[in-house]
Amino acid sequence: MILINGQAQDHIAVADRGLHYGDGLFETIAVYGGLPRLWERHWRRLSTGCRRLGIAQPDPEILWEEASHVCSGVDRGVLKIILTRGAGGRGYRPPQTGQATRIMATYPWPAYPEANWRQGVEVRICTTRLGRNSALAGMKHLNRLEQVLARSEWEAPHIAEGLMCDDDDHVIAGTMSNLFIVTAKGLLTPVLTACGVAGVMRSVILELAAELDITWQETQLRLEDLHCADEVFLTNALIGIWPVRCIEQRDYSVGSLTGLLGGRLQALLGAISE
Amino acid sequence: MILINGQAQDHIAVADRGLHYGDGLFETIAVYGGLPRLWERHWRRLSTGCRRLGIAQPDPEILWEEASHVCSGVDRGVLKIILTRGAGGRGYRPPQTGQATRIMATYPWPAYPEANWRQGVEVRICTTRLGRNSALAGMKHLNRLEQVLARSEWEAPHIAEGLMCDDDDHVIAGTMSNLFIVTAKGLLTPVLTACGVAGVMRSVILELAAELDITWQETQLRLEDLHCADEVFLTNALIGIWPVRCIEQRDYSVGSLTGLLGGRLQALLGAISE
Repeated sequence: MILINGQAQDHIAVADRGLHYGDGLFETIAVYGGLPRLWERHWRRLSTGCRRLGIAQPDPEILWEEASHVCSGVDRGVLKIILTRGAGGRGYRPPQTGQATRIMATYPWPAYPEANWRQGVEVRICTTRLGRNSALAGMKHLNRLEQVLARSEWEAPHIAEGLMCDDDDHVIAGTMSNLFIVTAKGLLTPVLTACGVAGVMRSVILELAAELDITWQETQLRLEDLHCADEVFLTNALIGIWPVRCIEQRDYSVGSLTGLLGGRLQALLGAISE
Repeated sequence: MILINGQAQDHIAVADRGLHYGDGLFETIAVYGGLPRLWERHWRRLSTGCRRLGIAQPDPEILWEEASHVCSGVDRGVLKIILTRGAGGRGYRPPQTGQATRIMATYPWPAYPEANWRQGVEVRICTTRLGRNSALAGMKHLNRLEQVLARSEWEAPHIAEGLMCDDDDHVIAGTMSNLFIVTAKGLLTPVLTACGVAGVMRSVILELAAELDITWQETQLRLEDLHCADEVFLTNALIGIWPVRCIEQRDYSVGSLTGLLGGRLQALLGAISE
């Protein structure tokens, strides 16, 4: 089901700036029992993105109503929200009195193998890089060609994700996930001030780590750090945590910290879904 | 008038990857006497972009037919072509058998003051930077949030354009134009291997310079180079050449090389329009 500004429709105006410039934001949200999961956090990120891009913030109550409407009856699925700056003339300059476009669409739950959670996933290193731009870093905006090109690099179904580096050889994230490693220094995850998306699940994991008194740090990581890591895992709003069992030539076992966080996360999300 | 895949329509499917990821390309083309100007060059850039992004190339004859159809009767205007990877499911991975979406729309000629050509324009330096990514550099793709943010930095109508630097303080381009400067070394324009759009008008100017035996070079430029330049001008497919008369505190006079190239360009474009 698709709603555009509250109306059941599946086409948007060609004049929309989302199409012309990727001038907007999106959220990918897990749906359980007819409800979008971790709604508050998704809303907060969307709202922060609006402020940073200067897009008119939608009314949170209207957004919630529309989201619950399209999710009702969806036992397990995905809600994608796209919020654009709305229609505009030709030219980069945003119109003075813009009306954001709200798009809500539900999708079936992706057919990820159960083994991804239990045995972990195989991951590759992408050659496509992430450009550095602090004005865009952290946001889930609609300029995603880098991820599209990175995800085009492989076909093999046994490879679940690809990691992307920036131009300075810092590892930043997977094409669709955030990265965590466990080393003697504790739990580490790439700092996202120059590129990458600050994932909703990433923030949940960092809070769980704090609650569990696990030392954690946002820091700059390189491929050598991954090579030396004891545990590696990926997160996003749909998958929660996937342990990594292999990055190209290097194998990892599903570690105890990954297991601990995974268990806590499951308890937390279970509680939310109940 | 708007054509989508040859049909008169003004809405596209929400599922289009142009909207979801900015997964596509565009061209902005001057229309004179019912015909798109410099068509071959625009087609060449679009076609190169398709190859680089792995988007199915449209049939050039169909594209030309559709373009001439929407331009017919437009004495002076703008044709915008958007070409996306087409519809696709959720997720970055491009579908195996994608059908590109062709969008053609005409717009009125922008109301630029005549003085922009004769007396030159005032230009500012934007604080929004351009991210560096060689995989995307040069293409006129749909990921344009950097330009949108840069163009949002000023309202003053007397400022015609803003220049953008990359993260390493190289000046790359205007938000909607390419940059040229004239120094003792000849005609210089920023190298576009890390970011920026390789403008159609930029390539025309470089060819005219070669014909006129003007020494020219693609090189890395910094703001100091602009400060020391004798002449500065901007180019794009609509404006041709705009001399720059002022960049923030520094004034320039419309120089002889700018005048020479402007004259030749006018002769060339006049010949094309006839």
